Amino acid sequence: MYLENIYSPKDVKKLSVKELNDLSDEIRSALLEKLSKHGGHFGPNFGMVEATIALHYVFNSPKDKIVFDVSHQSYVHKMLTGRKDAFLNPAEYDKVSGYTEPQESKHDFFVIGHTSTSVSLASGLAKGRDLNGDNENIIAVIGDGSLSGGEAFEGLDYAAELGTNMIIIVNDNQMSIAENHGGLYKNLQALRESNGQCECNFFRAMGLDYMYVENGNDVEALIIAFSTVKDIQHPIVVHINTLKGKGYERAEQDKETYHWRVPFNIETGEPNIDYGQVEDYSEVTAQYLLNKIKEDSRVVAITSGTPTVMGFTPDRRLEAGKQFVDVGIAEEHAVALASGIAANGGKPVYGVYSTFIQRSYDQLSQDLCINNNPAVLLVFWGTLSGMNDVTHLCFFDIPLISNIPNIVYLAPTCKEEYLSMLEWSIRQNEHPVAIRVPATEVISCGEPVDTDYSELNRYKVTHRGSKVAILALGSFFGLGKSVLSLLKEKAGIDATLINPRYITGVDDKLMNELKIDHKLVITLEDGVLDGGFGEKIARYYGTSDMKVLNYGAKKEFVDRFELQELLLTNHLTDKQIVEDIKSLIP
Amino acid sequence: MYLENIYSPKDVKKLSVKELNDLSDEIRSALLEKLSKHGGHFGPNFGMVEATIALHYVFNSPKDKIVFDVSHQSYVHKMLTGRKDAFLNPAEYDKVSGYTEPQESKHDFFVIGHTSTSVSLASGLAKGRDLNGDNENIIAVIGDGSLSGGEAFEGLDYAAELGTNMIIIVNDNQMSIAENHGGLYKNLQALRESNGQCECNFFRAMGLDYMYVENGNDVEALIIAFSTVKDIQHPIVVHINTLKGKGYERAEQDKETYHWRVPFNIETGEPNIDYGQVEDYSEVTAQYLLNKIKEDSRVVAITSGTPTVMGFTPDRRLEAGKQFVDVGIAEEHAVALASGIAANGGKPVYGVYSTFIQRSYDQLSQDLCINNNPAVLLVFWGTLSGMNDVTHLCFFDIPLISNIPNIVYLAPTCKEEYLSMLEWSIRQNEHPVAIRVPATEVISCGEPVDTDYSELNRYKVTHRGSKVAILALGSFFGLGKSVLSLLKEKAGIDATLINPRYITGVDDKLMNELKIDHKLVITLEDGVLDGGFGEKIARYYGTSDMKVLNYGAKKEFVDRFELQELLLTNHLTDKQIVEDIKSLIP
Repeated sequence: MYLENIYSPKDVKKLSVKELNDLSDEIRSALLEKLSKHGGHFGPNFGMVEATIALHYVFNSPKDKIVFDVSHQSYVHKMLTGRKDAFLNPAEYDKVSGYTEPQESKHDFFVIGHTSTSVSLASGLAKGRDLNGDNENIIAVIGDGSLSGGEAFEGLDYAAELGTNMIIIVNDNQMSIAENHGGLYKNLQALRESNGQCECNFFRAMGLDYMYVENGNDVEALIIAFSTVKDIQHPIVVHINTLKGKGYERAEQDKETYHWRVPFNIETGEPNIDYGQVEDYSEVTAQYLLNKIKEDSRVVAITSGTPTVMGFTPDRRLEAGKQFVDVGIAEEHAVALASGIAANGGKPVYGVYSTFIQRSYDQLSQDLCINNNPAVLLVFWGTLSGMNDVTHLCFFDIPLISNIPNIVYLAPTCKEEYLSMLEWSIRQNEHPVAIRVPATEVISCGEPVDTDYSELNRYKVTHRGSKVAILALGSFFGLGKSVLSLLKEKAGIDATLINPRYITGVDDKLMNELKIDHKLVITLEDGVLDGGFGEKIARYYGTSDMKVLNYGAKKEFVDRFELQELLLTNHLTDKQIVEDIKSLIP
Repeated sequence: MYLENIYSPKDVKKLSVKELNDLSDEIRSALLEKLSKHGGHFGPNFGMVEATIALHYVFNSPKDKIVFDVSHQSYVHKMLTGRKDAFLNPAEYDKVSGYTEPQESKHDFFVIGHTSTSVSLASGLAKGRDLNGDNENIIAVIGDGSLSGGEAFEGLDYAAELGTNMIIIVNDNQMSIAENHGGLYKNLQALRESNGQCECNFFRAMGLDYMYVENGNDVEALIIAFSTVKDIQHPIVVHINTLKGKGYERAEQDKETYHWRVPFNIETGEPNIDYGQVEDYSEVTAQYLLNKIKEDSRVVAITSGTPTVMGFTPDRRLEAGKQFVDVGIAEEHAVALASGIAANGGKPVYGVYSTFIQRSYDQLSQDLCINNNPAVLLVFWGTLSGMNDVTHLCFFDIPLISNIPNIVYLAPTCKEEYLSMLEWSIRQNEHPVAIRVPATEVISCGEPVDTDYSELNRYKVTHRGSKVAILALGSFFGLGKSVLSLLKEKAGIDATLINPRYITGVDDKLMNELKIDHKLVITLEDGVLDGGFGEKIARYYGTSDMKVLNYGAKKEFVDRFELQELLLTNHLTDKQIVEDIKSLIP
């Protein structure tokens, strides 16, 4: 056993090539064991075993600095830099994050979770080094779909002018999360097929030096390549051809499923937990859109590299044909594309995670909203209860989207309302519309819902009481209902419950009416408070006698939090809210 | 005279090549006459005269759809599509916007003002066409520095997979606003030098077909080229080599000055208005940073294609040497680069217009703020009184930046405070810091200012009165002072005046103290209200008896507005504010 004795990269350097090969096997076994029990990014790490070993064999981390793009492929790096126990000992599985994390190790330089950032960040390290007059190697590791994001291109364009040491490892595993898209990938293919020799070379065209390593899963070949470029005095790309998922046959075959994997049975590949046939909003969305696509040739569903968030499995993608577009990881383009399609009579529906729509603020504002084109955005997982890695928080879409003029941002509370809003948003031609897809289990409200949302900012009173009004937005409508009944039970207050529906504006008329027999309005939103929905209500009532209490999350970055704890800290349980109200309304 | 008889592109098609050449001359004369009197984008339009004529000669606009990137080079297009009088008749000079505008003409498809968007938007039109089963040509015109933005790359990457008609005209004038930066431009040079023949070709590497036109200012050559690609059934790049500013020698020589030009004397090239030696905050910034750069080798000033906004004229760029970096128009990279430099011990200061910092929300959040690196951002022209084109509004930086955790966003009110904050922000190592550079004339406050801002969110009381407290943020501090004195004069109220200094947080202690002897707090911010500073104050006081009145701009896109009108509409004059207060505090 070699892995057990690796406490730092120094211990890697002591091994022979044969021993490094054995180490690769041990690493894969440990990964398979942990990931099959714990879940995590599978394919990206299996493909990067040899390259990571070779990096630490050749370079001197942490003096030499390695920056992993997305950093979901940094598990092997963690194993070799003092954190092996988090992969060998089940009790310590959760002691490391799924991404690089400077607070864990001096071998990590950035917290990274979104794609396409490594070259820019690493070129910053290189520029800092040059300003300091130092001489360490700076290495960026990019690939696995990350090259398609605009920031990666901007970084490569700049790196070419840097004129000093910088090594960009392009981990070409021929995949994104799903299959790769975009013209660039044909050039990578041509480079692979010509053993890196074809004249037309994207990286050279960007002004960068270039080297190709055909077998990116051969430790010895990689050591030779990395040794050649070590201490080089100009920027160079080392293009390595790797196999995503290498070493576990199912992952090699079904790369998309094994990109990120829930815990599973090693023998059968089946998930350990039976998720059964529970309906979720991805499924609801895909079923609706597939029907719509068949009905109307103008409808086109768009994804930026994450087709399954909107339920588009490979077979459904095939079924939708030209009416389904995966632009690759390129959120800026996705928004502009949607705007252009809408401008020419199409009906684009772009589905995206809350955390990734952040990558296209300017496209939302300039390409879409100034032009007021009727494209539809579906924002998934906009909630405190979704992903809990600090790089994947889904708290910020409300301030991001709702303070841009012209766009209508809707917050449905149940399945019927969601589908009705979606139907309306595709039908209408007046506004860009975003829908914050409920981040709850699929709920039927069992009540009729409106079919027309063209009269903007009209909230829906679902229960008319007095004294206290509860504005419970979208996924927090259920919390609003709990508060309503608990308030009755604990304080004898028959409050008013309102489904605001529109995140982007205030229902002046209703808010004004409430003044007659209400003393307190509370707002509940499933996201950060700052810049959000509740503050608009607070501003509205600023000069009146109405008291306003806003509930949502404090503005802070939290990492791997326990949801219940986060809710408690932010006073987001029905009991806490009722206590607050009782202290205000004696 | 041909130009006078051009009412639509149909009239262009009737002319012979010789007549088209004469038309080019007439267009240049009209441009020179208008721009020397009126100001505007000079070089980009002078370089695009022949290409625009050839486009309208060959294609059938508006069925065929031309999308101009940035669209500041669309003046000739406007002249040929029914809007010549806005260039020939001084009384009508202001009847067209400086950008494409669908409300002006059916030949314009988008309002565009930020760079790098045309390929994505046009590919949307192409996809819409394909869904509709139509067959028009879709043409994107990109260049003049726009290729360096990530969105352009994402668009090219997608376009290559489109598989249907799309024509991308790359207007290669070898310039951005200032000189070009980035490795890509070396490939453009190699292509020019090889008459488009060199094997290593960026566009072909992106999977696109390619054609080169050596003389991009030759109408006949362009007509031949465009006729060849018309109705092509796959995407193709037509790379045309043009001369920025062609036809006016001073503009050909000094391309940076003549990118956008204030009114000037045609004979001497001197500005018509003597701006004298008035100090502005760009000048103040450059002087400070140049000194700092000499003192401290770790300090580096960064621009994304607009060096003069921070006062870095060509000679100063030379003087700063390696401590000045222009990344080209690549705001995402600029932010990530700054984060990386700070992570490796450097002291980056990135200066950027408010309207362009919008292009890097995710980099601010992920690359910079989650990593909490002490980079410094200088946000220029964050104000209602800056650029008034809808695509260049500078109203939205407060909601954009201030709702991201970890960053400290400061709002200085005068020169001394600005420099003191800048000094502190470079010195400290705790936070990413952004400074909203005052958008006023340079004011000396004549009072001592703090040198340490590390105790966050401590507002400064500059006058202690009672009843009413005025929170006057940054550039609106002067308005706050006016309200203070007018309130005394008209209502006998001796109010409290506060300089909040910190946009990113509430001074709880001070706000709580105000409750003792104040009934009303007003907030003044030079930007949009939604998601802004004032709403945080409204939320803070939500459950108290304090009344709060927020002043700022309504959330809407406004175009070519009169500032005074905008201020009046939004109740932003001292008189209106005092009237409002009197009606609330009888």
